[in-house]
Amino acid sequence: MTIQTTAKPKTKRGLERRAKILAAAEQVIGEKGFVAASIADITRAADTASGTFYIYFSGKDEVFRELVQDMGHATRSQAAERVAGATNRLEAERAGLAAYLTVVRDRPMQYRIVEEARFVDPEAYREYYTEFGKAYSEQLRQAAEKGEISAGDAEVRAWALMGLAKTLGERFVLWEDNVDIDRVVEEAHSFICNGLAP
Amino acid sequence: MTIQTTAKPKTKRGLERRAKILAAAEQVIGEKGFVAASIADITRAADTASGTFYIYFSGKDEVFRELVQDMGHATRSQAAERVAGATNRLEAERAGLAAYLTVVRDRPMQYRIVEEARFVDPEAYREYYTEFGKAYSEQLRQAAEKGEISAGDAEVRAWALMGLAKTLGERFVLWEDNVDIDRVVEEAHSFICNGLAP
Repeated sequence: MTIQTTAKPKTKRGLERRAKILAAAEQVIGEKGFVAASIADITRAADTASGTFYIYFSGKDEVFRELVQDMGHATRSQAAERVAGATNRLEAERAGLAAYLTVVRDRPMQYRIVEEARFVDPEAYREYYTEFGKAYSEQLRQAAEKGEISAGDAEVRAWALMGLAKTLGERFVLWEDNVDIDRVVEEAHSFICNGLAP
Repeated sequence: MTIQTTAKPKTKRGLERRAKILAAAEQVIGEKGFVAASIADITRAADTASGTFYIYFSGKDEVFRELVQDMGHATRSQAAERVAGATNRLEAERAGLAAYLTVVRDRPMQYRIVEEARFVDPEAYREYYTEFGKAYSEQLRQAAEKGEISAGDAEVRAWALMGLAKTLGERFVLWEDNVDIDRVVEEAHSFICNGLAP
């Protein structure tokens, strides 16, 4: 999908308005879904005139793709922050999973939007996970070299770990009113470290 | 979502026609997505008059929900068949993962439809995975009791394993032209058995 991209505003006021529209789009698209969400809904939620939207974005497609990209950056930077204190890869796995489940709890609309991207903007969806997967594989490869984890295919493991985190986020965070993130992280971490073998 | 359900036909011919429409719907909705797929597209693919559709289904919603349910049954029964020969839980995990990745390869439209259900029919989506998760948890619980796997939270593990399989299916089967299912299964299985710990 080729999406026309609009130049970013140069003034502080312009940047603030653009950010407000983006935040409103996250809320509205996250709640209603991409197809049902209208630009009028978004500008209403952003409390701006509907024409203002087109100063900053060419259409819903552009705003959606930027949301998906933003989410990728936000999730990666939050994970990186929490992982920074870890002294080895297994500790980093625990911290990264906790960070991810916290993002799912605090910004549930993000989860939905990224998943909806599979249908709305498959290219952005694939890029989102591919970037994640590449960086993750590289970390696992280095950790195996240092002997912090056992040897094994880094890419298969990276995607397995991403999938596991995603589904735990859906089942134990999105679908539950009272989430005990720490408990889920501890249980999952013990599986991640030691597997199922008796 | 309340969906009107249509009584199943009683004649062999009726049942065949209904099955043909269902198969066509799987193809068309899997390719175009639920929103874009029209009933006319489906009846055209099924090679029947468009009015025939309404003899068997109240609308697209009903056909979609039945597809999601069918896929759950098909995936579970195919996994059960391949798992039947396994003499312990770890072997069953390997066989189950291989069965699942084979289903993703052979019926890629299924994967897409089940994922689209998250937006089109969240109730059917949740039911699909919840049923799966319950049965899976129970199997892990029994295996832990028998000492075939280590002790641990069966539900967290079941969802972790489901998530891992799903993402491996997407990355290494749906996104690849030449899939080496055996290799992915072996790598993933070694992680599932032993985890990352050195």
